[in-house]
Amino acid sequence: MATGNINVSVENIFPLIKKFLYSDHEIFLREIISNATDATLKLKHLTTIGETSVEYGNPVIEIKVDKEGKKLHIIDQGIGMSADEIEKYINQVAFSGAEEFLEKYKDSAKDSGIIGHFGLGFYSAFMVAEKVEIISKSYNEDIPAAHWTCDGSPQFTLEAHDKTERGTEIILHIAEDSTEFLEDSRINELLVKYNKFMPVAIKFGTKEETLPLPEDAAEDAKAETITVDNIINNPNPAWTKQPADLEDEDYKKFYRELYPAQFEEPLFNIHLNVDYPFNLTGILYFPKLGNDMNMQKDRIQLYQNQVYVTDNVEGIVPEFLTMLKGVIDSPDIPLNVSRSYLQADGNVKKIASYITRKVADKLSSLFKNNREDFEAKWNDIKIVIEYGMLSEDKFFEKADKFVLYPTVDGKYYTYEELNEKIKDAQTDKDGKTIILYASNKDQQHSYIEAAKDKGYEVLLLDSPIVPHLIQKLESSKENISFARVDADHIDNLIKKDEEQISKLSDEEKETLKTTLTEVVPADKYTVQLEAMDSNASPFMITQPEFMRRMKEMQQSGGGGMFGNFPEMYNLIVNTNHELVGQILSTKTKKKQERLIKQSLDLARLSQNLLTGEELTQFIKRSYEMIK
Amino acid sequence: MATGNINVSVENIFPLIKKFLYSDHEIFLREIISNATDATLKLKHLTTIGETSVEYGNPVIEIKVDKEGKKLHIIDQGIGMSADEIEKYINQVAFSGAEEFLEKYKDSAKDSGIIGHFGLGFYSAFMVAEKVEIISKSYNEDIPAAHWTCDGSPQFTLEAHDKTERGTEIILHIAEDSTEFLEDSRINELLVKYNKFMPVAIKFGTKEETLPLPEDAAEDAKAETITVDNIINNPNPAWTKQPADLEDEDYKKFYRELYPAQFEEPLFNIHLNVDYPFNLTGILYFPKLGNDMNMQKDRIQLYQNQVYVTDNVEGIVPEFLTMLKGVIDSPDIPLNVSRSYLQADGNVKKIASYITRKVADKLSSLFKNNREDFEAKWNDIKIVIEYGMLSEDKFFEKADKFVLYPTVDGKYYTYEELNEKIKDAQTDKDGKTIILYASNKDQQHSYIEAAKDKGYEVLLLDSPIVPHLIQKLESSKENISFARVDADHIDNLIKKDEEQISKLSDEEKETLKTTLTEVVPADKYTVQLEAMDSNASPFMITQPEFMRRMKEMQQSGGGGMFGNFPEMYNLIVNTNHELVGQILSTKTKKKQERLIKQSLDLARLSQNLLTGEELTQFIKRSYEMIK
Repeated sequence: MATGNINVSVENIFPLIKKFLYSDHEIFLREIISNATDATLKLKHLTTIGETSVEYGNPVIEIKVDKEGKKLHIIDQGIGMSADEIEKYINQVAFSGAEEFLEKYKDSAKDSGIIGHFGLGFYSAFMVAEKVEIISKSYNEDIPAAHWTCDGSPQFTLEAHDKTERGTEIILHIAEDSTEFLEDSRINELLVKYNKFMPVAIKFGTKEETLPLPEDAAEDAKAETITVDNIINNPNPAWTKQPADLEDEDYKKFYRELYPAQFEEPLFNIHLNVDYPFNLTGILYFPKLGNDMNMQKDRIQLYQNQVYVTDNVEGIVPEFLTMLKGVIDSPDIPLNVSRSYLQADGNVKKIASYITRKVADKLSSLFKNNREDFEAKWNDIKIVIEYGMLSEDKFFEKADKFVLYPTVDGKYYTYEELNEKIKDAQTDKDGKTIILYASNKDQQHSYIEAAKDKGYEVLLLDSPIVPHLIQKLESSKENISFARVDADHIDNLIKKDEEQISKLSDEEKETLKTTLTEVVPADKYTVQLEAMDSNASPFMITQPEFMRRMKEMQQSGGGGMFGNFPEMYNLIVNTNHELVGQILSTKTKKKQERLIKQSLDLARLSQNLLTGEELTQFIKRSYEMIK
Repeated sequence: MATGNINVSVENIFPLIKKFLYSDHEIFLREIISNATDATLKLKHLTTIGETSVEYGNPVIEIKVDKEGKKLHIIDQGIGMSADEIEKYINQVAFSGAEEFLEKYKDSAKDSGIIGHFGLGFYSAFMVAEKVEIISKSYNEDIPAAHWTCDGSPQFTLEAHDKTERGTEIILHIAEDSTEFLEDSRINELLVKYNKFMPVAIKFGTKEETLPLPEDAAEDAKAETITVDNIINNPNPAWTKQPADLEDEDYKKFYRELYPAQFEEPLFNIHLNVDYPFNLTGILYFPKLGNDMNMQKDRIQLYQNQVYVTDNVEGIVPEFLTMLKGVIDSPDIPLNVSRSYLQADGNVKKIASYITRKVADKLSSLFKNNREDFEAKWNDIKIVIEYGMLSEDKFFEKADKFVLYPTVDGKYYTYEELNEKIKDAQTDKDGKTIILYASNKDQQHSYIEAAKDKGYEVLLLDSPIVPHLIQKLESSKENISFARVDADHIDNLIKKDEEQISKLSDEEKETLKTTLTEVVPADKYTVQLEAMDSNASPFMITQPEFMRRMKEMQQSGGGGMFGNFPEMYNLIVNTNHELVGQILSTKTKKKQERLIKQSLDLARLSQNLLTGEELTQFIKRSYEMIK
């Protein structure tokens, strides 16, 4: 048996790193600025622990575009490298200087914010550059500066340089196919995307700033403008601070920093801050959400040590919370792994359940501390809460205490309050409490009025997942049932013992039914005679709850076989209404038919079922009738 | 000046390859089966060119899951490797045997279908395995089999083995965190996703097959079942064949292979086949599309040499065609590059314009060869064509010949035919031809009827991008203008020289207007008196074309500032209608007001503007009136 070592030759691996390593070329700048940031933070750490006496000062990382020379410069004022260190850190692909530093300084350096990990980032420069130079001067004044050059072949040159300022300058000679990275606007775009919250100041060009006028300025004094460094980043973003150190206004300000194009303010925020059993900081915002569940995803940004990674947090944040906005920063989230791996990862699961818990706690405290304000926001946040109740059982339990049920009259009940309020009036003869709801105040107006006339409460439940949610509520609460107001005549929705007396005899009813079914199309409407209040509508169209709900559930992705069933309606005819008596007593067939048709059309109107030619005919007929 | 070579140590790069190389762990199986396929195709090539006399036969690649032993086996019957070849190809990370083979056999091998490229695929095994074994026997009978083992450290062992069948067996000892890959269902899922059309048969387990009964079988004979190999792939998918060798039914069959869960048949297909200046084959299908532009994307699958790569073809296929389905196979599409790079790449641009041209040609020939059939399909394909006209100028030009304009009566005109048909009747006094359209036959029924009564054609344009499309048509065609039928009274939409004589005097008109404006809310309706046919509607509500179109364009993402303007309507009152005369002559204020209100409500009904409480009141009032 022979043993040996697998080997890798730089000639083979080098082209791969250039072509293959990162799927997105534009991240080269993020990687090089991350190295520059690490070089600066290392120096900071050494000055902090007293290992060097050099002045740390206010170091800046500068980005310069030299369009004519086709060069991009990244210059830091960090720890710098000697020729030997360049040999060690640069000439060995995938040797991570950051890991070595963290290992060497262990405990003292663990919160230093050092980003580097794999020792590969530097080589991403060759994805866009045909030649790369490093000019570096160590913080140790005795060590001379060094100049490294490489044209993308594995061969490099290393020589002395006369650079005297501390730090490292990287010069990228941009390749022919990557000239987009010589445009100021493109570089600015990358800086804003990836580096906006990195911990060391990043300078890109200069800008004009208008000085405020002194208080005693003459009336015709002109404001002076000066040229200042254009710093593109905020090195201390809100999420890195303690919640106790932040005011409401600070959170709003940070929201505007994150989403400068957004006019609307967020409703409230949730500050995430945990360091055991995993490290995670962040701020989530509840934006104003409508009833559209699709528009709003992918607004949460994921960072690692203040470096932007992605805005796809699928698998990390529970799905119902991907409609929120904000940032999450965690070094403990494994990247570059498959989604199925992410979902199985213990840490990631804990992160998701921590976030869910924090969101539930925040909602609960908002509800308790300022109910009025919570009610005012309900319409904008309900879709997240309802979706969470459907998809996460733990959230469902917690939400029961604060989820609100609004009525068509703008009152808001918790489930307990609602039950208390309605149980006397809305419990039917079998002891079941019927919760009435409408999905649209306008379209179901006449049915809502009929229910309110009985003294019943009608909820307004209008988000697209309501059919699923009430299905879940019915199976988790006892002895309740939901019914939409137009599912039947109100006395049938909540059946009491009392019986309405019909003005018509059984024989008359028989005749009426025959007369009606001759005119009303049987394939669309099932005629149903009811003895109702004489003031109630003479004709009324209803759609049974069960079938309608199944159809709706299927439309919003619930499965089932009901979607293809035809729409079925009942035509309820009030035998106690004067007009119905009149229909019965009308002697001429033609006049009787006309009365039935016009009544049916009016009933269809209140269910939005009269359209097209039928509506045109109805309108014409009606103009005739009022002439 | 010193020069030197950048070096890379296997200890550093090896962990990276495991963690970092592929963002999706599941592709390991695709990579290993690609190697097995290459090993088989290499042998095929050698037998083809007569370099070996071994029997090629019907080689199969077999996948076996050993759940108890926590192992996954991939066994091929290909060219095999000697111990020396394992040293050369396996122990050198990133040395590509495939490239070497293609280099060696150059011209003769260029169509052999060899997949490998970077020589890295094998190492992706370590993303899921804690130990990997290779047992290989060369096709050269004199060379003994070899057995290679590696536990993921850079150290390997290599020894002799007693394997006698030609080919290579890879054994993956699946790691603790990847046990999902020991589930038959998961492996089957991966095989179907990545390997369904690879060129060598792939066996995964066995299946039962029922034999057909012989013709002379006894009546009570039972059909015999036998156990056969379960071959998961089709090695010769339709797109690899010549269009001339395929019937319509073959294309449909392939569609069912691609989308087994799809019930509906495609409308037609476009076979792509080009090898200069780039290599591309594929079949695109037009599915039945509704008016929803969002549901349908990401159905086109991208392959390279019959290996599935992705279903995201953004940047490769022009955006308006991403609603289609099908496959594209091209070795010339650069993967793992940024989207902005893709968009700038010359080859990719050419591919996109080739595909656009082929689609336009196909549509043009369908139109010419079977107009009736093309018309029948129009409603299902129009959204793609209209979107293409908007987004690609070249497609706009070509489409002018075959794009159809359907009327509300189900006739279909080309632009030229339409113009010919309507120019006499629908050219106004300023010489402009007015193209009338409706967006909804039901909702605009009464307006459509009014236009048809004049002998005008009314188009039915109901897709969501219509406002943008007609904007574009108006600016590219001369002397035409589009107007929706409810944008004004029909005589105002197409102004002729003749004037209708008003039954009312100027004084009466003045009085009427005053009376009307006292009742009709001025913030919603601008009252406009018109002398119209006495049979036309007495009251009519219209919405001016320009403002409505701007609002619609903004809703479908067109920009502009009109979205926030309030809805404005005109109330057109026909001074020649009997009812209007009656309103004028009614003496009691109360009765007059009631007449106006009822007429206004009827007019609002035909524009879907009467809802909620107002509708309930209207219905109540109407029941009263018919009693």
